[in-house]
Amino acid sequence: MSYQKLDKKALQSIKDVAHKLRIHSITSTQAAKSGHPTSCASLAEIMAVLFFQQMRLNLKHPRDPSSDRLVLSKGHAAPILYAAWAEAGLFPVEELRNLRKVDSDLEGHPTPRLNFIDVGTGSLGQGIAVAAGMAYVGKYLDRAEYRTYVILGDGESTEGAVWESLHFAAHYKLDNLCVIFDVNKMCPVDMSAEMEVYRERLDAFGFNALIVDGHDIDQLTKAFYNAASTKDKPTAIMARTTKGKDFLSVEGSEELHGQPLGKKAEPAIQHLQFLISNPNVRLTPKRVSKCGRAPEVNISNIMLCVPPNYRLGDSVATRLAYGTALAKIAADNPRVIVLDADTKNSTYADKMRDAFPARFIECYIAQQNLVGVAVGATCRRRTVAFVSTHATFFTRAYDQIRMGAISNTNVNFAGSHCGCSIGEDGPSHMGLEDIALFRSIPGSTVFYPTDAVSAERAVELAANTKGVCFIRTTYPSTRVIYNNDEVFVVGQAKIVRQKPSDEVLLIGAGVTLYECLAAAERLEEDCITARVIDPFTVKPLDTRLIVKHGRLCHGRIVVVEDHYQQGGLGEAVLSALADQRNFVVKHLYVRTVPRSGPPAVLLDMFGISARIIYKASICILKK
Amino acid sequence: MSYQKLDKKALQSIKDVAHKLRIHSITSTQAAKSGHPTSCASLAEIMAVLFFQQMRLNLKHPRDPSSDRLVLSKGHAAPILYAAWAEAGLFPVEELRNLRKVDSDLEGHPTPRLNFIDVGTGSLGQGIAVAAGMAYVGKYLDRAEYRTYVILGDGESTEGAVWESLHFAAHYKLDNLCVIFDVNKMCPVDMSAEMEVYRERLDAFGFNALIVDGHDIDQLTKAFYNAASTKDKPTAIMARTTKGKDFLSVEGSEELHGQPLGKKAEPAIQHLQFLISNPNVRLTPKRVSKCGRAPEVNISNIMLCVPPNYRLGDSVATRLAYGTALAKIAADNPRVIVLDADTKNSTYADKMRDAFPARFIECYIAQQNLVGVAVGATCRRRTVAFVSTHATFFTRAYDQIRMGAISNTNVNFAGSHCGCSIGEDGPSHMGLEDIALFRSIPGSTVFYPTDAVSAERAVELAANTKGVCFIRTTYPSTRVIYNNDEVFVVGQAKIVRQKPSDEVLLIGAGVTLYECLAAAERLEEDCITARVIDPFTVKPLDTRLIVKHGRLCHGRIVVVEDHYQQGGLGEAVLSALADQRNFVVKHLYVRTVPRSGPPAVLLDMFGISARIIYKASICILKK
Repeated sequence: MSYQKLDKKALQSIKDVAHKLRIHSITSTQAAKSGHPTSCASLAEIMAVLFFQQMRLNLKHPRDPSSDRLVLSKGHAAPILYAAWAEAGLFPVEELRNLRKVDSDLEGHPTPRLNFIDVGTGSLGQGIAVAAGMAYVGKYLDRAEYRTYVILGDGESTEGAVWESLHFAAHYKLDNLCVIFDVNKMCPVDMSAEMEVYRERLDAFGFNALIVDGHDIDQLTKAFYNAASTKDKPTAIMARTTKGKDFLSVEGSEELHGQPLGKKAEPAIQHLQFLISNPNVRLTPKRVSKCGRAPEVNISNIMLCVPPNYRLGDSVATRLAYGTALAKIAADNPRVIVLDADTKNSTYADKMRDAFPARFIECYIAQQNLVGVAVGATCRRRTVAFVSTHATFFTRAYDQIRMGAISNTNVNFAGSHCGCSIGEDGPSHMGLEDIALFRSIPGSTVFYPTDAVSAERAVELAANTKGVCFIRTTYPSTRVIYNNDEVFVVGQAKIVRQKPSDEVLLIGAGVTLYECLAAAERLEEDCITARVIDPFTVKPLDTRLIVKHGRLCHGRIVVVEDHYQQGGLGEAVLSALADQRNFVVKHLYVRTVPRSGPPAVLLDMFGISARIIYKASICILKK
Repeated sequence: MSYQKLDKKALQSIKDVAHKLRIHSITSTQAAKSGHPTSCASLAEIMAVLFFQQMRLNLKHPRDPSSDRLVLSKGHAAPILYAAWAEAGLFPVEELRNLRKVDSDLEGHPTPRLNFIDVGTGSLGQGIAVAAGMAYVGKYLDRAEYRTYVILGDGESTEGAVWESLHFAAHYKLDNLCVIFDVNKMCPVDMSAEMEVYRERLDAFGFNALIVDGHDIDQLTKAFYNAASTKDKPTAIMARTTKGKDFLSVEGSEELHGQPLGKKAEPAIQHLQFLISNPNVRLTPKRVSKCGRAPEVNISNIMLCVPPNYRLGDSVATRLAYGTALAKIAADNPRVIVLDADTKNSTYADKMRDAFPARFIECYIAQQNLVGVAVGATCRRRTVAFVSTHATFFTRAYDQIRMGAISNTNVNFAGSHCGCSIGEDGPSHMGLEDIALFRSIPGSTVFYPTDAVSAERAVELAANTKGVCFIRTTYPSTRVIYNNDEVFVVGQAKIVRQKPSDEVLLIGAGVTLYECLAAAERLEEDCITARVIDPFTVKPLDTRLIVKHGRLCHGRIVVVEDHYQQGGLGEAVLSALADQRNFVVKHLYVRTVPRSGPPAVLLDMFGISARIIYKASICILKK
């Protein structure tokens, strides 16, 4: 079918709706006394065409897995997105006046508190990764017809994350993805030259790159048609627009960026009303078609297809057990996917790639896109995603993880190569702040498995746990200390050594748990007995158990971690004890930037070895 | 002067040196039993040409401000960088065998523990931002002749940060910058097509983009000449290379990536020795020329040119005071620079732009590059840099800040818009993990000024404090509570309210300090008196004062912050009290993802208002 121009009436109706959206953007931000109406105005025709001419939507179930997706990367244009959904009939337009009010979910920037929003936006340059994740799942897992749209502002195109995602989308030939750049910033003189620069860049990044007048409905419709009929290439529509378009005496001015129109609102509204030829126009979005629908999926109750299979005393790295467990849960559920940033042979995510190559997504060295794609891939409960790279490289994507939490994401993260126990690669490769990062994520769960058995169970639990999960895995091999049938529960610690005579409680995880055990041996030579706890999850921490056994050990605790002081296991323990009197805690942690060297030497040099724990224990006995 | 080909002898000497560098790369990684010799081999001719034909170096003072800079973004090729400096004569080649040993500074990835390294690398895609910062200072501040080189691997070109920096470098016409891509990954068949893709992308990003055979010394020399004679455009040299080049039976294979050659080392070395025509070849780098030198600068003892000038009780946002103070210290010292990511009118960095436009660097919406450029700009003590954006957007650049600390950077960061007190913009814009982020940076100082007077002093102190400094500023206006002549010291808290009868100690900062004061008023109505402390710096925290006054208040502390629980002020206080018995702490913090609404409503809704502090205080009195 070739492209058919819209008839005059249809075209006028969309124009009229665009102006109505402009009016709503003014009135809602006036009522809120804040917001970005001029950034909405540049989008009016794009929104009108998307909602009332392009997208297939289900108003009864806005998160219908088969309906088209729209991500508003330029989240500050939220008022016009809300207006479009209201005009489409999802909720009364009167509600738009509650924008930014504390008792309304029409927040300043979109969040999934609203049932028509998949992900929170507002931190710029992130929408395209999320949209690419949705499109990837649509094309390769769902094999469905839904399309994914994402709208960016031109300002955010300087974010590197955008270029990571463009690269990813083109590399994976996501022809079901359409990226719209609302280029509303430059003055008219430069614009054509600038648009060509955009086109060249997008061309070079492998996109079907189109330039249109973003206020011309016919050009927009044609571009979307072109996008839909282009195979094996994602499309980028660069829409030349004007900030505050059709806002009388405001259009094109930078002055009112990020502000409601104030006194200029009334004349602008009147002018827009004058531009509308049929004030009663009412359009409805296209419905989701019966064919090409997304399959039904079940992502609950995911299990290891076979239980852990180790012998006590075996030496196995938890990162290896992570890879083993991935393949096991992927065998159990066809919606488990794994994403990695070109570190698969050191995170052991390659075990998933070898077992289920179709569900392994190589995201190359681009961690921000890696995380965004995973967030998008899990939207609408399409998949259960595990994302792995070296623990410290998640710092690269902290903003994306933070926004993931605002988006209620269930993505699971696994960070290998934690702490100075990685040895010779040196400080650039040591995760020493990863617990701090993931603990700070609202609603997160932080697993720190010590041996291979608990690592496999951590993977299984994470797959079924809501919110962001983080699994911290360890580079060197560690001794298996749990039986294969040991039961692990989120928030339940394990007592791994105890006697009634214990005088001090040692808490460690990963390599430092073994250092605690060695320290306890050495203390026993001095006729001092120590209890040892493995927390299993650092968040939630098993406060009850720690308080109980801490008391039994006379309120003396030594907590040791291969991590910096701040925000890690030690401060988690201190938080757990905050409202308890009569505890004294010695916290051992990595005090300065470490260096290259053999792991055991570094543990001692940086103050977290059995020797140091022994000394700290002796010292704390006097307290 | 037009390009002159190297004579045959010179060319052969450089070839010989390249092979010597290859041999060193093998032997050092053999001795270390780890490392990436094949990633070094691809770079051998590039290194040889840079060190012995291009760069102007000062072997007596490797960080001579006037010498050329080289940043090895692909830090895993450290062995060949070390080898080049050793061959140049900086230290004995025998030391190369100490690679990765705990008592040698020749670490697995470069760090500035070595006197010839400006910044730590190893986390990929960061070198170019740093190099761009150096080049910016060279061109616009130093106006000197030194050139900056940066070497990337092709794998890291997928990092978005790279594209942020390319955009920046071209935008600012950094013709003194030369970016070298060591394209060693693809198989020969695809390579020419891939190289063209690279060229197109770099072209579109505004670079003078050249493709060369990276093992052809003549082509390399010519490209460097071309780079040096191109005006107003930075140059990118895309060098087609082979991993493991000239390593017998290893060349071009992926198999040994990231591993020493093992048994293949000996035959490879013998083959390389055979390729060397003059084993006694000894070249020296060009010296730094007498003209075009960088000026001497003094960046110590920076002061506010006029002291704070407020009246007690004035209502002034600390972010505004930050902007005011920037202009004041910039007036005092011509080497103060400010960088911002298109948020200058909300961080108030625009006060600097208005006062000293030549020392304000607009980095647009690209926080990773923003931070990297600042790190580069401060290298070799050329400048004192302040970097501002919204507090939460620093999460975008956590990895760059982390690597900054490994690089011993002195960059100062200021984050505005912290906490839910920003109100209607909603959670995407609220900094609720920024203290956790900056506390986790080794050697950092975290300022959290409460009023305008302390904010100005924080800026002044940060300018003179070693290591990463972070200043957390607040969106709403707050009451001036300190006299203009109040003296502030890093690590010294202020008691802002006290009576001998105090029964509980309240600790808050920024908006929560005022909530503490209001709570104390309310408690006094119930005949309960409370002491109130303003920590001023969260790191280092004034442990002595808090312990002393906490004891005087019967060991009862309520700490309140507009931040999540983890890693913030509360856990800092708990860490300070870890080894004290007989304290009980009630920590009030933002418990869940906040929402849009009026600031005062949000403070109460999310549990950090005076009302909640009052209740918590009443409750803690029973403990």
